[in-house]
Parts: sequence; C-alpha cells; structure tokens
Amino acid sequence: MVFSSLPIGIFDSGVGGLTVYRALHDRLPNEHFIYLGDTARVPYGTKSLGTVERYAIENSEFLVSRGIKMLVVACNTASALALPKIRERIGIDVVGVIGPGGRKAVEITKGEPHARIGVIATEATVSSNAYFEAIRRASASAEVFQAGCPLFVPLAEEGWTEEPETYSIAAKYLSKMKEFSPHALVLGCTHYPILRDVIQQTVGENVKLVDSGEATAEEVETLLNEKGLANPNANTGKRQLCDDLDHFYVTDAADRFGRVAERFLGTKPSKLEAIEVYGVDELKGKK
Amino acid sequence: MVFSSLPIGIFDSGVGGLTVYRALHDRLPNEHFIYLGDTARVPYGTKSLGTVERYAIENSEFLVSRGIKMLVVACNTASALALPKIRERIGIDVVGVIGPGGRKAVEITKGEPHARIGVIATEATVSSNAYFEAIRRASASAEVFQAGCPLFVPLAEEGWTEEPETYSIAAKYLSKMKEFSPHALVLGCTHYPILRDVIQQTVGENVKLVDSGEATAEEVETLLNEKGLANPNANTGKRQLCDDLDHFYVTDAADRFGRVAERFLGTKPSKLEAIEVYGVDELKGKK
Repeated sequence: MVFSSLPIGIFDSGVGGLTVYRALHDRLPNEHFIYLGDTARVPYGTKSLGTVERYAIENSEFLVSRGIKMLVVACNTASALALPKIRERIGIDVVGVIGPGGRKAVEITKGEPHARIGVIATEATVSSNAYFEAIRRASASAEVFQAGCPLFVPLAEEGWTEEPETYSIAAKYLSKMKEFSPHALVLGCTHYPILRDVIQQTVGENVKLVDSGEATAEEVETLLNEKGLANPNANTGKRQLCDDLDHFYVTDAADRFGRVAERFLGTKPSKLEAIEVYGVDELKGKK
Repeated sequence: MVFSSLPIGIFDSGVGGLTVYRALHDRLPNEHFIYLGDTARVPYGTKSLGTVERYAIENSEFLVSRGIKMLVVACNTASALALPKIRERIGIDVVGVIGPGGRKAVEITKGEPHARIGVIATEATVSSNAYFEAIRRASASAEVFQAGCPLFVPLAEEGWTEEPETYSIAAKYLSKMKEFSPHALVLGCTHYPILRDVIQQTVGENVKLVDSGEATAEEVETLLNEKGLANPNANTGKRQLCDDLDHFYVTDAADRFGRVAERFLGTKPSKLEAIEVYGVDELKGKK
C-alpha cells in the first residue's frame, strides 16, 4: 500500500468533530478517514493547557499507530493549545481548524476597507485568543470581536436547532456581537454549524458565516495536492457519510456517540469501536 | 489524632458536589471536609459503567490516602453505578446520594395513600434506574416518574438561575412531570439545587422538593452518631463555608472551579489545590 492511499486521521474531544468529518468527506470524495472521538475525556474546553496537550498527543499517537497520512485536529481547544506539541511528536502533516477558519474569514472580507470579524467559540477557545491571533496574522488591520457561547454545545447535542429557547439564548449571547456588526462571523466550535440557521438569523443574513470545518477541508485539499498525497485510488461509486470505508473510534460510550452522530449527520457510523488511548506514551517507553 | 477527628471525604465529578458539601457543612458544624472534584474527567454522566467505576475508585483511594473517616460520594452517576466497587475497595463507611434522596422522598410522602414521586436527573442517572430502585426499596407502592433534564447542568454553571430561558426550558422538561403531578420531586443531580427556585415555580408550590444532598447530610449525621464517629473536638466559633478547615482538591483547572464555586456558594475555597489521581492503583501495585 502506498503512503498516499492511507486514510486521513481526524480527532476531536468528542462528537463535535463530526461536522469537520462531514466537511472533509464532502470535499474529498476519494479520501478515507479514521475518526477518533475522545468521549471518555470530553470536554477539553474546561481543562488546562498541560492536560489538553497530554490528551492531544495520546490521541494523535493512537491515530498514527493505525496508519494515516495526515492528521486533522478537529477540536478547537486542542487546535488552540496543542498543535506545537503534536507537531513535535508526530512525523506527518498536522492541520488544525483555527488557522484555516481565521484565514478564511480574512479572505472573504478582503473587499472591506476595515474588515470586522467576529468569532464565537467556547470560553476556553475565546480566552486562548487563538482565533484573534490567526486572524491578525492574516490581516494586521482586521478588527476582531469574540464572544463565548457556553450553552450552544449542550443545545446542539440536545438537537434543539429550532426551539424558541435556542433563539432566545442566541439573541442573548450575540447581542454585543450584533452591535459590533461583523462582516464575517467565525463558527469557532465544531458544534456550532449544527446551530447555523439560528446563528445566521440572529446576526442577520448579511453576515457571512465561516464554518471552520469547511475552511479546514479546503486547506487539506490544497495540502494533499501540493504534497502529492491525494489518494491515487478513486472511489468507485458515490461515497456515503459514515459508510464502511471510514472507521470511527471512541474512547468511551459508543452508544451515545452513535445517537448524537445520527442527530448531527443523519446517519450512524457503520464501523464504530470503543478503544483506549490512555498511556500510549508509557507503553512506548517515551516520556 | 483519633480516627473520629479525621475529616469526611467527599468526591464529585466536578463542581456540582459543592451543593452536597454545603448541606454537610451546614448540618455538621463540628466536622471538617476534604473535597475532591474530578474536573479533568467531568462529566461522568455520559460515560460507561467501567469508566465511571475506575474513576470512582481512583478518587476514593486518593481521599483515603489523605486520611478520612467516612466517604460521601456526592456524584449521582458514581452513586448510581460505582458504590459496590468502592465498598469492595476501601475499608471505611461509604454514603452515596441516591439512597438518602430516595428514602427521604418516601418519608415525606408517607401520609399519601398512593404516593407519587418524581425524579429529575441527568440522562445517565435516569437510565440507570437507581432512584427508581431506591424509592421502591423504601416503598413498594410508590409510583415513580423520572425525567432527564440535560440542559440544567450547563444552565446552573452559567449561573442562569433567574433567566426567562431557564424558566422556559424547565417548563419544557417538566411538562410530563406536571401531568404526573408528584407529591415529592427528587433533585437527582447535584447541580439542580442551584435551580431550585425555577424548578419549584415550574412544578408548583405544593410539590415537596427533595435535595439529595440535604437528605445525605441527615443520614451522615445519623451514621456518625451510631458509629461514634462524630468529631470529638467541637469547632470554636462559627464555621464559614470554604474556610481553611476544609481542603479542596481538583484534578484540573482550579481557576474555573474557584469561579463556579463562588457562583454556587457565594465564596471561594481558601485551600484549593490541583492534583493527579490517575493510576493511583498502578502506583500501589494493585490490580
């Protein structure tokens, strides 16, 4: 088997990264994926730098051990905090979701003389300032305003995508964002695309929403082509989300993952396995 | 130091158990407490039996290693799933929150010829049927109706105790409960006492709310007296919540714990330390 025919690895703290999987799957029909949801240790957003780094490395090494040609860190918190450590440890290309999301927001507001870019995310991602820095690296003049929306994750997992309570909570969280009046708004958490309609209606139809997952899929496509890593074996026939070419692992509670996956993607993984990633490090005798 | 002058250990998956700490503290002014919040691995409610058992044992052994005379498992999920394993492993008295909560509900509805008892909890606690069984053990004739309220935990942690959205969500979650028209309603999750007013108003003033934490504190008091384990050294002066006689440990993110503690208790722990409990087992050479 040639290296370029290996699957792309994706990890997330839980089920949210499935929106990134969907974006990659839709954009790259010839690629296969291995997804790891660290459901035993979700959420990462409330955890410290050292802990998130340790979990991220364990997840990455697990995926590398299964044979992957590229790693996508779908989790915003891990992308914000752990990319340097992951890159130190594994020898393949690593793509996070924050750089692509930030760059995409700058790209689509290029026409504005004074671009205003909003970011909504978990409290941890907001405090990390990772999106702010990614946007500023791409455009020194862009004005950035961030807002934490802690209840959006549980609302998305409840599947409350049309409930009046969700609209009301969104109006509360986004009131200052509306005053800021952004040209583009980055959905800086993997769960937020599930609430896309609510968010769009709340901030107004003229605000361009940036799905970091979709932006990441675009950059992964470019990188695959640049490095000659696109899968040489074209898939015959139409790929389905969660079909048996893609393999899903969780560190705990596979049943619940399957249920929420169905809510998020409209279908359940056909290959879903519960595994352990703890102490992968120690087993290898590394520090 | 005599055994009975040791502190009482309390563990929870995170910050929610502070409501149980408060209940114990208020009822037992002569006792000292060591609280462990497993914030690195919260929440337990979405995790599997084996994982919850492992975490619960690690937490219990950590507390035993600090010197405690009794263990209170404040976490409903761990109380529902892991009490037998914990009792197998540690040699001191272990009190969970579910038994006391269930028994209290039966006790206060004794006057009713056909007692109807409602239970609200996380989805995991509801599916475990632990409250249902505890209630039925105390009264074979009680009718029980359970409802999961997944958004109550994040709402409590946001501090949204008076927001109209919280009332609206409560009305949604509790509509079938109101039809059931319970005589008593068990708050079967440590976070729910924070939303007590919302819940009481939603179900109506005639429904008796049972705070499992308060019920647990009562049973702990009885057990201390029965076993001669009450602290022989009376505290001089008035105890304050979170004063330096009580020691708080978290497995991660002490800052956030302090902030939410302030929201829940109106004060921050004066002694708060981040520690690791992982692999306590392995270190001890046990299996």
